[in-house]
Amino acid sequence: MVGDGMGTAQIFAGLTANKGTLNLARCTAIGFQKTQAADAFVTDSGAGATAFAIGKKAKNGAIGVDALEKPHPTLLETAQKNGLGTGIVVTCSITHATPASFYAHVPSRSQNEDIAAQLLTSGVDVFVGGGQKYFDARADGRNLVEAFKTKGYQVADSTADLDQFKSGKLAVFTAKGEPRSLSEGRGDVLLNGTQTAIRLLDQSKKGFFMLIEGSQIDWGGHANKTSYIISEMLDFDKTVGAVLDFAEKDGNTLVVITADHETGGLAITDGDMQAGQAEGKYVTKGHTGIMVPVFAYGPGAEAFIGIYENTAIFDKITAAYAPGFPASRK
Amino acid sequence: MVGDGMGTAQIFAGLTANKGTLNLARCTAIGFQKTQAADAFVTDSGAGATAFAIGKKAKNGAIGVDALEKPHPTLLETAQKNGLGTGIVVTCSITHATPASFYAHVPSRSQNEDIAAQLLTSGVDVFVGGGQKYFDARADGRNLVEAFKTKGYQVADSTADLDQFKSGKLAVFTAKGEPRSLSEGRGDVLLNGTQTAIRLLDQSKKGFFMLIEGSQIDWGGHANKTSYIISEMLDFDKTVGAVLDFAEKDGNTLVVITADHETGGLAITDGDMQAGQAEGKYVTKGHTGIMVPVFAYGPGAEAFIGIYENTAIFDKITAAYAPGFPASRK
Repeated sequence: MVGDGMGTAQIFAGLTANKGTLNLARCTAIGFQKTQAADAFVTDSGAGATAFAIGKKAKNGAIGVDALEKPHPTLLETAQKNGLGTGIVVTCSITHATPASFYAHVPSRSQNEDIAAQLLTSGVDVFVGGGQKYFDARADGRNLVEAFKTKGYQVADSTADLDQFKSGKLAVFTAKGEPRSLSEGRGDVLLNGTQTAIRLLDQSKKGFFMLIEGSQIDWGGHANKTSYIISEMLDFDKTVGAVLDFAEKDGNTLVVITADHETGGLAITDGDMQAGQAEGKYVTKGHTGIMVPVFAYGPGAEAFIGIYENTAIFDKITAAYAPGFPASRK
Repeated sequence: MVGDGMGTAQIFAGLTANKGTLNLARCTAIGFQKTQAADAFVTDSGAGATAFAIGKKAKNGAIGVDALEKPHPTLLETAQKNGLGTGIVVTCSITHATPASFYAHVPSRSQNEDIAAQLLTSGVDVFVGGGQKYFDARADGRNLVEAFKTKGYQVADSTADLDQFKSGKLAVFTAKGEPRSLSEGRGDVLLNGTQTAIRLLDQSKKGFFMLIEGSQIDWGGHANKTSYIISEMLDFDKTVGAVLDFAEKDGNTLVVITADHETGGLAITDGDMQAGQAEGKYVTKGHTGIMVPVFAYGPGAEAFIGIYENTAIFDKITAAYAPGFPASRK
């Protein structure tokens, strides 16, 4: 799980607004990862997410390729190759940098239509996100939404009742472009999408791999709006709670929660823990280079204690499968 | 061990300047503590250190007393009562808020001469710090430096070769007022003082309790000077390395490293990990309210994983002694 732009300060802003508690705090291991890109001290989401998706440092803007633009298999692709179910649930467009880093391989995150085409061929079982226009209003005239249907996907939009989907492949387009913020009325898309994906993917005998992103924590940081960060942070944390509930019950699921980078240089200068109020100040509208926390829960969680490179997240998740990967989990 | 004003950003500034590594990263457990004071969201060092020294929230400015100004036994006093050796090594005056919180009980940190008098009666075996003027240039005319000698302490100043002290009680006054910064020529006082204290206190059959503070990380934050933060952070981390070396060899020593609060609202906006350069920006000359990391090593370290109140540090250290506290360690 990724909270985009979720540094220590964003977590603490959410914790304060939530009167001192977060589901994140249920995790049994905490570490820090260094987010630096191959070519820059301050990473973007492409290089940041690519580092933990493929285990190689990338240049800023790159998706699923190393610093020499060579593609490498992602955690999701390897899981799929080994027979696990795969899912992606995000609150940005499904072709945005973080989700794309788990299924696409392109030199630039701006290649949204290329990324969309790679999602079609990726075989990801369940995905929930925005950016429908990159699939059905494309420069090349192709309609990839129809193509997903042809491939046997059930296709839904943000108005659909997700409870109706009981099994099979599922594509949910939550917006034509970028999904709205929670305060603008996005609704419980992240939680419902995640619970739907878990329900479908948990039918996989070999288990599943999912990427879940609270994408707009980052956008609150870019806007230097603390209330935006907090509402998105708590939306993400509610979903963290549901995932930890599942993992607790399942007993054989590793949950890793981290960020690609920090956004805004947020400082919490005042607040009231009892009233749930936090006051933030910023030094930039962009990202910063600070190390970001990693929280983990479940078998193998203890490997995430320490301070390490973002690429080590890939190594640690890969190692958590071993020995006997892909192990049957049922 | 306390890095005053040492939030995630200060640690990362030091790590970047040190080209990606810190002794802190050798710790086997990481958590976060909430630093809020009894009467303020943003704590001072008095309330912050008092919270983990006595396990009760205090009002800002208070030393070793709860929110109703009632004194409670500190970790150091309890250790002493149970027959452990005790020591304090800091790079501020020995009567400053953080060290004072471990041996004194006064409503206000500004009562330096009262605090000094309480150090004399505290029975702390070894201490190294500045603030000699609060002992020998007092309003009440008493000379407490002489009083320490009468009590059997060996007394030294910053010019002394600390290697000469092989056993017994030791008071080292490193400055008349506040010690200089490292860049102004303080020298290896923190490391040498710590190694001297360990050498003397390790002779205690029941073990020992020590407070070691990198006091001036905070002063770099107040000055909004990143180079000051970094040099003090690395001075502190060098001492962390020596303490972890001892704990590793000893096998029965719990090391807890944290901060009382963050200072400056530091953001790391640019840098170069290979060259060891970090660029910082600030939002305040004061403290901020963000949670601060806790690092732990040794028996009981795993209890420090999680997100908890600063008062829980007291509880966790106390619990780490049990069962059978005070256990003989030799």
